[in-house]
Amino acid sequence: MPASPIRRLAPHADEAKRRGVRVLHLNIGQPDLPTPREIADRLGEIRDRVLCYTPSTGTPEFLASVRAYYEKQQIPLGDAQVLATTGGSEALLFALMATCDPGDEVVVIEPFYTNYSAFAAMAGIRLVPVTSRGRDGFHLPPMHLWEAVVGERTRAVLICNPNNPTGTVYTQEELSEVAGFCRRHDLFLISDEVYREFAYDDRKPISALELEGMEDRVIVADSLSKRYNVCGIRLGMLITRNPAAAEAALRMAQGRLSAPGIAQQIALGAGDLDQAYFDEVVAEYRQRRDVLFEGLTAIPGVFLLQPEGAFYFIARLPVLDSDDFAAWLLSEFSFDGETVMVAPATGFYATPGLGRNEIRIAYVLETEALRRAIRILAEGLAAYRSARGLESIPLDEPSEKHRRAKVPGM
Amino acid sequence: MPASPIRRLAPHADEAKRRGVRVLHLNIGQPDLPTPREIADRLGEIRDRVLCYTPSTGTPEFLASVRAYYEKQQIPLGDAQVLATTGGSEALLFALMATCDPGDEVVVIEPFYTNYSAFAAMAGIRLVPVTSRGRDGFHLPPMHLWEAVVGERTRAVLICNPNNPTGTVYTQEELSEVAGFCRRHDLFLISDEVYREFAYDDRKPISALELEGMEDRVIVADSLSKRYNVCGIRLGMLITRNPAAAEAALRMAQGRLSAPGIAQQIALGAGDLDQAYFDEVVAEYRQRRDVLFEGLTAIPGVFLLQPEGAFYFIARLPVLDSDDFAAWLLSEFSFDGETVMVAPATGFYATPGLGRNEIRIAYVLETEALRRAIRILAEGLAAYRSARGLESIPLDEPSEKHRRAKVPGM
Repeated sequence: MPASPIRRLAPHADEAKRRGVRVLHLNIGQPDLPTPREIADRLGEIRDRVLCYTPSTGTPEFLASVRAYYEKQQIPLGDAQVLATTGGSEALLFALMATCDPGDEVVVIEPFYTNYSAFAAMAGIRLVPVTSRGRDGFHLPPMHLWEAVVGERTRAVLICNPNNPTGTVYTQEELSEVAGFCRRHDLFLISDEVYREFAYDDRKPISALELEGMEDRVIVADSLSKRYNVCGIRLGMLITRNPAAAEAALRMAQGRLSAPGIAQQIALGAGDLDQAYFDEVVAEYRQRRDVLFEGLTAIPGVFLLQPEGAFYFIARLPVLDSDDFAAWLLSEFSFDGETVMVAPATGFYATPGLGRNEIRIAYVLETEALRRAIRILAEGLAAYRSARGLESIPLDEPSEKHRRAKVPGM
Repeated sequence: MPASPIRRLAPHADEAKRRGVRVLHLNIGQPDLPTPREIADRLGEIRDRVLCYTPSTGTPEFLASVRAYYEKQQIPLGDAQVLATTGGSEALLFALMATCDPGDEVVVIEPFYTNYSAFAAMAGIRLVPVTSRGRDGFHLPPMHLWEAVVGERTRAVLICNPNNPTGTVYTQEELSEVAGFCRRHDLFLISDEVYREFAYDDRKPISALELEGMEDRVIVADSLSKRYNVCGIRLGMLITRNPAAAEAALRMAQGRLSAPGIAQQIALGAGDLDQAYFDEVVAEYRQRRDVLFEGLTAIPGVFLLQPEGAFYFIARLPVLDSDDFAAWLLSEFSFDGETVMVAPATGFYATPGLGRNEIRIAYVLETEALRRAIRILAEGLAAYRSARGLESIPLDEPSEKHRRAKVPGM
């Protein structure tokens, strides 16, 4: 099992707090927005005599609410095609285990959500990375790179759309290419779509469930966590129209008896939320993105293309070792009594050496705090380059040149 | 993945209900006793603005409450020795994955809790059974049978004490033998102790954590589900004093982010329960056991020794195929408009052919319903033997002869 790369920094953060330095956490995907009252208030309404096991598939009411949600997305689903899971995490674990035996391989686009490595280790499978590049806005790499890694033991492709950690939203054209690749090599497509609502500038994320000719190949991992700011209730869902994959996932679900029951009860409150709820949440994140993008790209040597979705992005910095920089920010630096905790990007790559001049930022603080974070990063970068003798590293490729450039399909 | 053997009968139960027959469920371990108000009422007191992720280890408050509970059992635990899990199920999965690689083997006493097979399949490991016998009250088989199955790939022993499905409580003498076996072959001991409170006739179950010289080898899977009638909240814990196993489990826990947060909050209410709560619950189960034991052993050809703990037992019946009998009870039989759903014991054995004349009964109904269930089983057995032409099978070994006999260490 790999250790969590983000959590390696935790002792440094504790140290900063002991020194009286306030730490702005841009390192974790815990949204700060409130859980809607429509959901949270239901906690007080639970009158069950026994908090008993729920069906392994999920309660009929919760499953119906999931189907209703997907129906609104123009994605009709049958009864046996939805399984309640303990967060999107369990949906991903079940998806990998349903499609692979130990020793099998799954193609994944790096950088990718760190915990894919944990699920892969638990399933005994090997993640085979294809690298996406910051200069392309982390859009999907060209097909010849995918073809180069596919082998006899390849069973599936795993994508995340909108993407954590890059904030990229894949286009119809890109997803069609992925679908063709899966059909060509007889692979499942596991699609992590937990950030579906979070897309900016009129982008509408396309679900893998909408891809033609892929009905039998797609497994979607979804979650209520980010959509409704209920990360702690641990409720997600696995969705597939492949009966064998659904059956395999169901057997695993039966093994662990049931997904959290209280969560399934209060989740029904999501049915009382209208589009205005999502509009407001998305507007807030878009504003944060704008603040960060403008602010960070104005720092010499910082590069990123405009993030398109989710609430993360990867930025290139004028450093040689972002693990060292992130630790330094916590243990050696502060500005006006504050510092910033960021996630070094190395943990999001499977290929050794990649991501050493990149960090991932999660924009889960309000804009005022984000403006302070930008200032801290600007001051911190200058001080760090001086402290580490990095002034000779050129601040090339200023991000202004690349803004909105080279992004396919946009 | 194996299909759940109990759930195979579900369509027959649905069919019975459609015919207007009331089904008494003795097949599943969902206690009917109420969740204590001390726990359930806390749902209405949650005022969190965000239902956010909790620490992967568990909340400090919940972990402290677990340590306090174990302290009362004279088992002191350190901070890093307790991990909150999503039910005992996840604790078992983590324990298997922390100790084994795919292809490794774990010695398990059959009959065993069906879902061990699911967790083993997910972990890619092989369960190697040693058979316990009804005539011995399902106490542990002699050591030479254990020695015969241990091999190069054996990594751990998995026991459940008090036992589901047999209701057996292992003695100090037996557990010492298991400890010696583990030390001799350098194995972990994974001990499922979710029924710890449920022991009758002044038995006090011994935790594997109390075994001397085993501090570094024991991993306990525990759960609040049965102890406090909160099966649906999905909250358990993994406990080990082995730092490497704790670290491996922690990494898996970090991968899935956190155990259910609301569950950890309301679980603190258990601290408000005194010994009277357990006394009352245990007295209720003991009475049910007495009713069932007296009633069933009076049926010709039914055999079991007096169950010692948990709220299950395995009974031998004068039939050749308990799967067929269980299905027949649901689809062909009723008595006064009712029938009984029992779990055929075949699903609790790994060795093919074993358990075909046994059923598992969970006593999760009140005594009045249990008395009716006994009558239904008595009438059903006679009718079934007649319908299937089994009258020639002798009703030998009446249980009265064996009652309280041959049980080691008692």
